[in-house]
Amino acid sequence: MEYGIDAVRIESMLTRLAKITATPGQGVTRLPFTPEMSRAAVLLEEWMTDAGLAVRQDASGAVIGTLRGERDRTVVIASHYDSVQYGGAYDGSAGVVCGIEIARAFAKRGKPLDTLAIVATNDEEGARFGSGFFSTKAFLGQHTDESLSAAKDACGISTLQAMRQFGLSPERLPEAAWDLEKVAAFLEIHIEQSTALEQAGAVLGIVTGIVGMRRRMITVYGRAGHAGTVPMLGRCDAMEIASAAISRVGDIARGFPQTVATVGHIAAESNEINTIAKQVTFSLDVRSPDLARLEATDRLILEELKQACDRFGGRYETTVTLEQPPAPMDEGLQALLTACAKERGIPVHALPSGAGHDSLLMASRVPTAMLFVPSRDGISHCPEEWSDCGHLAHAAGVACAAIEKIMKQS
Amino acid sequence: MEYGIDAVRIESMLTRLAKITATPGQGVTRLPFTPEMSRAAVLLEEWMTDAGLAVRQDASGAVIGTLRGERDRTVVIASHYDSVQYGGAYDGSAGVVCGIEIARAFAKRGKPLDTLAIVATNDEEGARFGSGFFSTKAFLGQHTDESLSAAKDACGISTLQAMRQFGLSPERLPEAAWDLEKVAAFLEIHIEQSTALEQAGAVLGIVTGIVGMRRRMITVYGRAGHAGTVPMLGRCDAMEIASAAISRVGDIARGFPQTVATVGHIAAESNEINTIAKQVTFSLDVRSPDLARLEATDRLILEELKQACDRFGGRYETTVTLEQPPAPMDEGLQALLTACAKERGIPVHALPSGAGHDSLLMASRVPTAMLFVPSRDGISHCPEEWSDCGHLAHAAGVACAAIEKIMKQS
Repeated sequence: MEYGIDAVRIESMLTRLAKITATPGQGVTRLPFTPEMSRAAVLLEEWMTDAGLAVRQDASGAVIGTLRGERDRTVVIASHYDSVQYGGAYDGSAGVVCGIEIARAFAKRGKPLDTLAIVATNDEEGARFGSGFFSTKAFLGQHTDESLSAAKDACGISTLQAMRQFGLSPERLPEAAWDLEKVAAFLEIHIEQSTALEQAGAVLGIVTGIVGMRRRMITVYGRAGHAGTVPMLGRCDAMEIASAAISRVGDIARGFPQTVATVGHIAAESNEINTIAKQVTFSLDVRSPDLARLEATDRLILEELKQACDRFGGRYETTVTLEQPPAPMDEGLQALLTACAKERGIPVHALPSGAGHDSLLMASRVPTAMLFVPSRDGISHCPEEWSDCGHLAHAAGVACAAIEKIMKQS
Repeated sequence: MEYGIDAVRIESMLTRLAKITATPGQGVTRLPFTPEMSRAAVLLEEWMTDAGLAVRQDASGAVIGTLRGERDRTVVIASHYDSVQYGGAYDGSAGVVCGIEIARAFAKRGKPLDTLAIVATNDEEGARFGSGFFSTKAFLGQHTDESLSAAKDACGISTLQAMRQFGLSPERLPEAAWDLEKVAAFLEIHIEQSTALEQAGAVLGIVTGIVGMRRRMITVYGRAGHAGTVPMLGRCDAMEIASAAISRVGDIARGFPQTVATVGHIAAESNEINTIAKQVTFSLDVRSPDLARLEATDRLILEELKQACDRFGGRYETTVTLEQPPAPMDEGLQALLTACAKERGIPVHALPSGAGHDSLLMASRVPTAMLFVPSRDGISHCPEEWSDCGHLAHAAGVACAAIEKIMKQS
């Protein structure tokens, strides 16, 4: 195949990487700052070195392989190497592996004009600490000491502590910030995680933009009591209040086109069969390509919650853990990728991304573009997740062609 | 005070016992078959011995102190020494400590006519394995090998394994069964855990009967997916289905007099912010003094769940973990306790119990009665739980008087 892109090697790397999981037999679980991430990093460093790159792990835990060019101007190929719990073998990993394959192609051709950086980011998913995009926030210099201490995992370990356990120095995190002036393009290959490409019969997706996201954690405070002795009329049951709001989330989101809202996480206290819940904490994740629809959805859900609190005399607190406006992709790069695909006769389809990606954060600062490959049945974030490595090879080939053209630009 | 019942000693025992907790500073947590239960048993054995009783721990983990009488006919004073998570110092413990105080009074008087047994039961609450009444089930010979293996705690440890870790032999459990013919009366002193006594201005409650209970665990199966990429219309979100049913539980129960229904426990998979819930497991606890109302409440809640499953294409499975019909208390014993209280000028109030108790299971087999003392603000199953030890002393005194009269009966 053109540029020596090898679908079999892509598949073999993905298979090998998928074996590094905290939940063998139940999909890929690589939560940030865990031994699984350390082991995956070793493998990525090995492959990047073998591809001819100079490799380092930065202060955010990202693995970065660099092919020095004639000049500092840099083209970045990035995706993440962490996963959700019980996730799939392709989400994030596919883009990282394609990046290594692209770098191998360029390294074979001698020193390129621009520098090429292959970046495997850490904690994009936010599966452990709730916010995600950890490495890209570091590239953009957005971390604060407060946010590192405040974010805690289910065991009460803060990001700060987790970094130290992982062998990283939180105080060195500012060193992970990029000189954004030098970034000519930030490209990400990723699985679609939905069915638009399958439905369009396309092999590649050109992402027009990424939906805006707002994530919040909500804690409802009720009053604990004995499940048998407190009369129904005297109750302030945090579970009753929370469920009144959660049960409305879907219908509210369905009222706004292209808008989704999800409660994926819930935890009750004391979480016992025979005790009325004292408090219930749950997550709310709202996404829309349209900021007004996103905000209306979020607001209506909180109004339902307020109403349920008022009915039973409870109260709630909420913290926004992620706020990201919709991010259009760079139009020049979209056109370039589309042209490169069409030259090769590869059927493409333009589509928005419903998922957040590292590109979401980068898009506001550097020219950013994404290439999607179809996900079988649109299924993702579960062990059944699957994409065709032939499609990934096409994505890598198109990216190579586009990078060649980007490098020819002054 | 009459019979030498000492409110200060009752209070001091309760204070000492409350310190044996897995959650210091956050109330009493003594889950069955834990080191805390071992330590509490040591203390109870010490106090029972000091009160003049012969003490043993039976195969169910119950601590039993016996004052041998002239005959085998036995009067039992029982309550439990386990607790819920983050529970209070009085629930269960109050009755156990009063029992020890009563035994001390009888022991001082020399050999009684009937044998007196003070029983501190294990795992009444069901806070660890979901069903509860572990010791009383053993007294009644109701355990099976299957039920011991099937019931598992949050860490996947079965009751069978937990028993072994605690130093008990599951195969010896049949030895804990009682010769019920010999039990003349089963008496339990307990905190009310509600506000009826406070509202009636009564110091003691004579329990007329215990509500029936049905407990079930319900698992809703949906389809996992990415919270950003799966369109709302294609979702089968286990959280949306479960919350639709849970949000209806309160209003359904409020439709039936004296009936309560509670969802105290919930757990989602994968329980991540950005993944649609694949499955949600929750508990349902329904109680009513009227079996028809109990069954109607349970049925209507499951109908809501069925409807939500049908709407989104999900399904559910459910297992009943406890089924107990309403249990009236022995009328003769109720009258006796009432008379003994009135003779002493103690204001009593007859009331049903909304909470399950060991007496619930015993009532169908032996003459059973319960004495309640007021709970401040009706609050229970939380660290703020409080009752007046003067009231507990009154309960113990009334019980002594009643036991004397029971022993005079042939």
